[in-house]
Amino acid sequence: MARRQASLQRAQDDDAPVGDLEGLLGYNLKRAYVILRNDFRDALGEDGFAPRVFSALSLIVQYPDITQSELARVLGIERSGLVAIVDDLEARRLVQRKPVPGDRRVQALAPTAAGIAAYDTARAAVQAHEAARLSNFTKAEQETLMQLLRKIRAVED
Amino acid sequence: MARRQASLQRAQDDDAPVGDLEGLLGYNLKRAYVILRNDFRDALGEDGFAPRVFSALSLIVQYPDITQSELARVLGIERSGLVAIVDDLEARRLVQRKPVPGDRRVQALAPTAAGIAAYDTARAAVQAHEAARLSNFTKAEQETLMQLLRKIRAVED
Repeated sequence: MARRQASLQRAQDDDAPVGDLEGLLGYNLKRAYVILRNDFRDALGEDGFAPRVFSALSLIVQYPDITQSELARVLGIERSGLVAIVDDLEARRLVQRKPVPGDRRVQALAPTAAGIAAYDTARAAVQAHEAARLSNFTKAEQETLMQLLRKIRAVED
Repeated sequence: MARRQASLQRAQDDDAPVGDLEGLLGYNLKRAYVILRNDFRDALGEDGFAPRVFSALSLIVQYPDITQSELARVLGIERSGLVAIVDDLEARRLVQRKPVPGDRRVQALAPTAAGIAAYDTARAAVQAHEAARLSNFTKAEQETLMQLLRKIRAVED
């Protein structure tokens, strides 16, 4: 047993792949995502926005009068899940649902002044934490990583 | 409203960043991770291993006699969470807990023959799905993506 444990230890010390898992994209994505998710929580605090609530608010602030259907599509989540997020944002008075003239089945979403302010504060905190996390990346590496991650998404569309 | 909606639509058609979110690493990681997680489920089926159970089994198969503490450390998860995973694997008779001579507080983990067979089947299925997902990536792009994802993790260590 001692020999096997030693080889596991050495593999990690050398920053060498730990067997099969390190060769899997899903594993590497998960590990990196967990770090960024924890950073996000640190940035916004215990009572801060959950990532998907932040994402929804971001789009509502940037694209006022976006509909729930559009929001669900852009975020790639189920419409049912989105309704709960919008309910949350509306309860906090950060977002308002508004009727769309000529289509009573649809409601448009608009940020309140408090919603815009809360978003700006949260965005700045998240951006600062990401910049710190990526401090050992060159600008080119950051851009390459983003492009390759988007390329994964492009295949599904 | 029509104008704003048109600009959102155009931004997506052009594959241009949809505002602030596309500039955030956390957002891009999450989107890519969700795709790979869904691929993983498709690969293993409804009753297949959850990702973290698969990861634990992978390490137990590759490093027999690994301890629970080591496993938790390598996987970057809490020891309490790991115990539930090992309980699950043991209940399915894929893994056995074994006493460690000279240290009664510690138990080593070893795969059963069924555990090794189940892992080999699952690994092949996951690898095949990942290869399909990355079919539009060059080998160099795949390697660059993996390296940059590991680099994020390296900062935390």
